[in-house]
Amino acid sequence: MSDRPTPRVVIQGVQPEIDCGRFPIKRTIGETVDVEADVFADGYDVVACVLRYRHEDDETWSEIAMEPLGNDHWRARFAVGKLGQYIYTIAGWLDPFQTWYQDFLKRISAGQDVTVDLLIGAGLLQAAAQRAAGADAAKLKRLASGLKPADVDDRLSALASIYADRTDATFHKELRVTVDPIRARFSTWYEMFPRSCGTFKHCRRVLPEIAELGFDVLYFPPIHPIGHSHRKGKNNARKAGPGDPGSPWAIGSEEGGHKAIHAELGTLEDFRNLVAEAKRKGIEIALDLAYQCSPDHPYVNEHPEWFRWRPDGTVQYAENPPKKYEDIYPFEFETQHWRSLWEELKSIVEFWIEQGVRIFRVDNPHTKPFDFWEWLIRDLKKRYPDLILLSEAFTRPNIMYRLAKLGFTQSYTYFTWRNTKNELTEYFTELTQTEVREFFRPNLWPNTPDILHESLQKGGRPAFMARLVLAATLGANYGLYGPAYELCENVPSEPGGEEYLNSEKYEIKRWNFHDTSSLRGFIKRVNAIRKENPALQSDESLRFHPIDNDQIICYSKHTSDKRNVVVTVVSLDTVWKQSGFLELPVDELGIDVRHPYPMVDLLSGARYMWQGSKNYVELRPGETPAHILKRE
Amino acid sequence: MSDRPTPRVVIQGVQPEIDCGRFPIKRTIGETVDVEADVFADGYDVVACVLRYRHEDDETWSEIAMEPLGNDHWRARFAVGKLGQYIYTIAGWLDPFQTWYQDFLKRISAGQDVTVDLLIGAGLLQAAAQRAAGADAAKLKRLASGLKPADVDDRLSALASIYADRTDATFHKELRVTVDPIRARFSTWYEMFPRSCGTFKHCRRVLPEIAELGFDVLYFPPIHPIGHSHRKGKNNARKAGPGDPGSPWAIGSEEGGHKAIHAELGTLEDFRNLVAEAKRKGIEIALDLAYQCSPDHPYVNEHPEWFRWRPDGTVQYAENPPKKYEDIYPFEFETQHWRSLWEELKSIVEFWIEQGVRIFRVDNPHTKPFDFWEWLIRDLKKRYPDLILLSEAFTRPNIMYRLAKLGFTQSYTYFTWRNTKNELTEYFTELTQTEVREFFRPNLWPNTPDILHESLQKGGRPAFMARLVLAATLGANYGLYGPAYELCENVPSEPGGEEYLNSEKYEIKRWNFHDTSSLRGFIKRVNAIRKENPALQSDESLRFHPIDNDQIICYSKHTSDKRNVVVTVVSLDTVWKQSGFLELPVDELGIDVRHPYPMVDLLSGARYMWQGSKNYVELRPGETPAHILKRE
Repeated sequence: MSDRPTPRVVIQGVQPEIDCGRFPIKRTIGETVDVEADVFADGYDVVACVLRYRHEDDETWSEIAMEPLGNDHWRARFAVGKLGQYIYTIAGWLDPFQTWYQDFLKRISAGQDVTVDLLIGAGLLQAAAQRAAGADAAKLKRLASGLKPADVDDRLSALASIYADRTDATFHKELRVTVDPIRARFSTWYEMFPRSCGTFKHCRRVLPEIAELGFDVLYFPPIHPIGHSHRKGKNNARKAGPGDPGSPWAIGSEEGGHKAIHAELGTLEDFRNLVAEAKRKGIEIALDLAYQCSPDHPYVNEHPEWFRWRPDGTVQYAENPPKKYEDIYPFEFETQHWRSLWEELKSIVEFWIEQGVRIFRVDNPHTKPFDFWEWLIRDLKKRYPDLILLSEAFTRPNIMYRLAKLGFTQSYTYFTWRNTKNELTEYFTELTQTEVREFFRPNLWPNTPDILHESLQKGGRPAFMARLVLAATLGANYGLYGPAYELCENVPSEPGGEEYLNSEKYEIKRWNFHDTSSLRGFIKRVNAIRKENPALQSDESLRFHPIDNDQIICYSKHTSDKRNVVVTVVSLDTVWKQSGFLELPVDELGIDVRHPYPMVDLLSGARYMWQGSKNYVELRPGETPAHILKRE
Repeated sequence: MSDRPTPRVVIQGVQPEIDCGRFPIKRTIGETVDVEADVFADGYDVVACVLRYRHEDDETWSEIAMEPLGNDHWRARFAVGKLGQYIYTIAGWLDPFQTWYQDFLKRISAGQDVTVDLLIGAGLLQAAAQRAAGADAAKLKRLASGLKPADVDDRLSALASIYADRTDATFHKELRVTVDPIRARFSTWYEMFPRSCGTFKHCRRVLPEIAELGFDVLYFPPIHPIGHSHRKGKNNARKAGPGDPGSPWAIGSEEGGHKAIHAELGTLEDFRNLVAEAKRKGIEIALDLAYQCSPDHPYVNEHPEWFRWRPDGTVQYAENPPKKYEDIYPFEFETQHWRSLWEELKSIVEFWIEQGVRIFRVDNPHTKPFDFWEWLIRDLKKRYPDLILLSEAFTRPNIMYRLAKLGFTQSYTYFTWRNTKNELTEYFTELTQTEVREFFRPNLWPNTPDILHESLQKGGRPAFMARLVLAATLGANYGLYGPAYELCENVPSEPGGEEYLNSEKYEIKRWNFHDTSSLRGFIKRVNAIRKENPALQSDESLRFHPIDNDQIICYSKHTSDKRNVVVTVVSLDTVWKQSGFLELPVDELGIDVRHPYPMVDLLSGARYMWQGSKNYVELRPGETPAHILKRE
């Protein structure tokens, strides 16, 4: 037993709080953090509590009084206006003068003699005066010296409360929120192999078109020298033919490794120029962070201690038994020399940050230790809080969520494999309506160079349009492996597989962006709708709505002031016309059902007069398999 | 960065775990603790994990391998066979030989050359041999010296796993479970003012009857000397008349305080004899622990520092402004002399423990500091692990739950004020199907000397029968303020109030236990049913079932082996006949619906042949407003 009993106020059930405070939550700049908690004490004393917060670079705390919601539940919110991490916590204490004041009012109402009570109240004011200074101290002292019933009012009580004794305040553990740039929440990615344009200089010419299409992140697969040992040929052939360029993920050759640029793409200066020109067009260049080496990578000779060696004196290549990837050497993250390895890997990111890159798509982070990522991201974000890291971990949910918790800014999702109404509803409800939304920012990709889903293979153009609309409206962050998507490339390398035939990973493609059947116009329209409608720029307002047809999915997003409400309706049938009656929660969406209200289809421009909560929709896959409807 | 990277295995989402491990869960002796968690690592290495547990008095841990349930979720259970606290945790580590073995099998299946792989496997066995001893070490060493494909099998893999390197194991924080005696889970309380029998010697004569009624806890309001200053008269009159005995909760007079016995009840020896005699009849005497004093309590003179003093030189009496309770002085728990006060208060419990008492009903614990209780209970339970403390905190849910978490064995509930089907269903689902069940043991009281609910005032005998059945079957722990309940006393002291007219708190009553209209026979039957049916002796299997009549509530309890299934049906209408079709989840209850099955009403003895999941019931309040049906 210590010299004082421990503080009597209990603070529990604090939300948001991830894994008992082990991990920060996430916000983007300008957003708010709504904090709720149960705060209470034994007995009948009045409890006061505040939300405390500060940016980690600031020393002084700001405080906001929490609002009681009943049953010991309290709430307050603060806005995050600066990149980096904020710290927040709750403090609670007893307020004896408030307790006294509330009792006093009851005694007065009951006509009781309050002579002794006034002496008690005066004693409390005297104590408050000692904690106050200046005019307040003087005022409290004066009142304490001869307290009269007429002195006692809400103003006096509020003044005394300011100087309540906090010696025995209870403090909740300090929680954190990582504040990222807006693009962490709202971004539109275009993936492109720069070598298919030619050089970085050729890529510069494509920038205006990509900007016009409405993309603001241009992501390149690795741009480094490519190994020649065990180089893969076209369609992942075990042996490359002469002239086969190899997979960009087989990083490193005699020409250099992760900090070098493939000579055929240009120079470092060309790259810096491209980055700068892209920024002027509103586009960030995103690089691929693939921590692995080709057998020809300089690291293999210079740092053999960073790799695992087999008893036959060879380096352990990547494997997924019985499959062997002899063109790839993974790092041995648990080598005795892990410090130097980890520092070097971090320096790769620093190198590209210095060239102007702020967004990285991280290849297979789930095959590297969690603590490596937590250390790397924390350190880099401290110095470069505008950094964005997209986790490409297609693995089990616990692992994907762990990577998000420990710092990844955005994450690939299972979207590609969620195709039915039930699958989509269940998954996106989990991502946006549960605790997951506090740490996991979904980035939705209908395709990638690795994944051509069966629905696209079989559904053709209507499927490409439907999946695009789903990605772009379910997710404020979405991306396309662009050239193949625009042209509705849908032939797999083998039946039942998800690899592209003649995959761009193993050969240089020349895409005809001006094909008349291209989806360019549609993509441009969809991206413009995203830019014009703030409702589509975040995910937490996503709600699914009933419609009496399993082939049609309906959902809405809205801004917190409900001025911008967007209702999306997508047909999952790529062949037949589908129709049904959908039902909107009109009250929640702020729709007045006493009058008809116009809904404009932002895709087609059509204008519908709706009435009440139930309305009819009809979709023809041959035309446009979706409505993106805005309440005018 | 430390010298080694941190362990790669993650353990999260451990259940049960209360408030991040801050509080123990509860079990009774012989029960099991089912522990589940997500355990995983980065990459593809095989993870192993165990549940570890030990009694706090033991030094060595027991381990149980956890069973993988898919998606990184694991489960294991252990039984608690000893009173006191057990500690449990989870340990997880990587098992490189298992990883190697699983890959090896795939390589063999694919017909690959495994020469180098055998060398790698041998190296792992060599390392395992170094951690092993005796025959195992020798065997591992021998195999390591020339590993052949034929040597590699499940047995070898299992042997190597035993000696997996745990240097980098991850350990979850240590969690606790308090193991209480069976009576903490299953008890039947009878509350009686001993002075209404006369003396303790007279009470002894009543013991056989109480035992016959099926009660196993006999709870007495305070048995100490009663103050005379400001003593309350009949019906809580401000002034006592001559001969008015006063409220037993106004504890202390010149004759003594909390460690003394009211002279009119007998001597300490009489009390000890009563306790011993009760034990022989299977009954525990429970005492009231009311930490407050009458103005005449010896503490007031001997320890003025334990009370709060008003500026007029008087002791602060209890208040709920504008109400004043001048016959009661609360303790000042935060006095500078809190250590001596707290120790003295603890010594009161110790005193009565020494007289043979093991059960205490604690009066208004929510008006004393949480930390006081946590300290007192933890210390006492360490020495007397069979101690049972019932929390009488009728206050807000957070506070009631907090008291349960910090150590109270059982708790009063809102049962008295939950009367409709919806209210009962919602409340008891919360108590038995959520995390609450891990720490809060409900004890259901249809009445107390303070609470005569309107439903009993207005519903008469059918209401007394229905509320009794509800309490006795919804709660494995339940109690009655017995004499008044048996005789269906239902006149309140004022309309709209919940106090009894001529309350026994302020006068000595002589009850006619042999009134022919008494509920004795019915109570005896209900308590016998509880004793014969283990399904009714715990709460976690409670499930509510649909019935197409809002005036009838239906629920079941069953043992884990489903050998004992009890379905209770209660009419909430005290006037009219009610009937309906109820629907049982026959699969969950292990009922074979291909054949009719007999259901016996344990209250009436009637036998019904039921068929399928839907069956008809009909209840007449004039007869018996309930069925307690057992599947034969």
